[in-house]
Amino acid sequence: MKLLSYLDAQGLPTWGVVLGEGAEAGVASLAARSGCATLAEFVGSPQYTQRAALVQGLSPELPLAGLRFLPVIPQPEKIVCAVRNYMDHHQEVLAAGMQRELSDFPPIFLRVWRSQTAHGAPIVCPQVSASLDWEGELAVVIGQGGRHIAEAEAWNHVAGYSIYNDGSVREWQFHAKQIASGKNFESTGGFGPWMVTADEIAPGRELRLQTRLNGEVLQDSHTGHMIFSIPRLIAYASTIFTLVPGDVIATGTPAGVGWSRKPQRFMQPGDVCEVEIEGIGTLVNPIVAQG
Amino acid sequence: MKLLSYLDAQGLPTWGVVLGEGAEAGVASLAARSGCATLAEFVGSPQYTQRAALVQGLSPELPLAGLRFLPVIPQPEKIVCAVRNYMDHHQEVLAAGMQRELSDFPPIFLRVWRSQTAHGAPIVCPQVSASLDWEGELAVVIGQGGRHIAEAEAWNHVAGYSIYNDGSVREWQFHAKQIASGKNFESTGGFGPWMVTADEIAPGRELRLQTRLNGEVLQDSHTGHMIFSIPRLIAYASTIFTLVPGDVIATGTPAGVGWSRKPQRFMQPGDVCEVEIEGIGTLVNPIVAQG
Repeated sequence: MKLLSYLDAQGLPTWGVVLGEGAEAGVASLAARSGCATLAEFVGSPQYTQRAALVQGLSPELPLAGLRFLPVIPQPEKIVCAVRNYMDHHQEVLAAGMQRELSDFPPIFLRVWRSQTAHGAPIVCPQVSASLDWEGELAVVIGQGGRHIAEAEAWNHVAGYSIYNDGSVREWQFHAKQIASGKNFESTGGFGPWMVTADEIAPGRELRLQTRLNGEVLQDSHTGHMIFSIPRLIAYASTIFTLVPGDVIATGTPAGVGWSRKPQRFMQPGDVCEVEIEGIGTLVNPIVAQG
Repeated sequence: MKLLSYLDAQGLPTWGVVLGEGAEAGVASLAARSGCATLAEFVGSPQYTQRAALVQGLSPELPLAGLRFLPVIPQPEKIVCAVRNYMDHHQEVLAAGMQRELSDFPPIFLRVWRSQTAHGAPIVCPQVSASLDWEGELAVVIGQGGRHIAEAEAWNHVAGYSIYNDGSVREWQFHAKQIASGKNFESTGGFGPWMVTADEIAPGRELRLQTRLNGEVLQDSHTGHMIFSIPRLIAYASTIFTLVPGDVIATGTPAGVGWSRKPQRFMQPGDVCEVEIEGIGTLVNPIVAQG
């Protein structure tokens, strides 16, 4: 099942389910039916396990074509991002001459929800930068929250999977050792188009991940190259703080980012960036200059 | 004027003003009177400039003694923290043998609100660590929000000042180059007891800052040692994202942290940590073991 957040016919935020296929595909809101105002609330509710019954017999209310998406979880309490979590990316960073050691622990940083942007909405290239880079990533949406979640229990806390483009303003990222500044520019983190519920993707299944800029393939890898597994990331993060429903874990990007290329390449206004992950779909964002 | 968040007589969260002095001191709620549910909402509202009229003639509803404080802003949208922003701290870090260069830009990281704890409430020493360190800091509470705030305009966006103890779990902080993990443990960031409105502290005034553990002075510096000024921090952060009312900027800590001492010293369950800043007050937190 595909769940998503979007604007309804009145332009008000809601969330719901994707129904049908191809040209017939559409969405139906589940906010009133479930009594959960947000998708984040729903994935943490007891109703989440009865979602099949909730959508039974529903018809699309709005076509998927032309839908105004919101980030899958518009305002996660926490967005925890893994750094250098793909072996192929680690190797390209070394090859680019940066001195980096593999850590024994998952390196993480935080994004703020304000840095997110929806499927189909622009990724905004900041005025202050000419080095906006792509990072296609598998995103995990937390369902049941908790603290000190053991690795063996971690899959039970995953509500579903989505796609993140962890848009990175490279000069700002490297202003200092702490990369938060370059990772938090407003409307640089694509998140969508929907989340696929966890029942549809077996735990640990290797998923192909491709990032394309104007159709050109720039990242082509699979989630089997992750250094720290999803259970390890959940266990690590939940040692620090309580995870809550709708929290997002962006699991890191594979090889092929623009910064490590020779010559370097970045996203420019007018480009279109796509991140496709097997079994989930394709996140599409046009790049626009900051107004 | 001192504004704060706390639990009312029914144990419900509210916010208000400190009235009176010494044994007579108490608080009165301003939530209903202002129509603002939270202090964050109030500092961004037009009413904030009429606060003197709002509190005129009020009497304390609860004594300050025994009050159950909340973090001054319990759930800031963003908590932006400066790293190594005091020259005396930078020098002690070098002396401790760590290779660090001064950056041309303010190094920042983010805390999540869940890592905060109130004045009088415990700072929780995590099970997984024996290296919980103090960092006394001046906290800036943003009033009017904005993006691309110029340094020359930045003081107009400061609603007031408070005290932060940026409690740091050092082994986790140094798991990797990204320090977010050690800086975000639940209930490690003391924030209180109140904010002093900006009219009471002239822009750029040097304020003495002292951190004491069980009465022993361990940090004793002043805000004149800051490397990046408050206007610089606001301008830098607001280039990245829109600042909103109630956002918090923790401006960094001076020399004297436990990690840089020989021998190193950390906070232990049973200790009491105090951070006092001239013109604001004293933030007091007992240290307890995680249950």
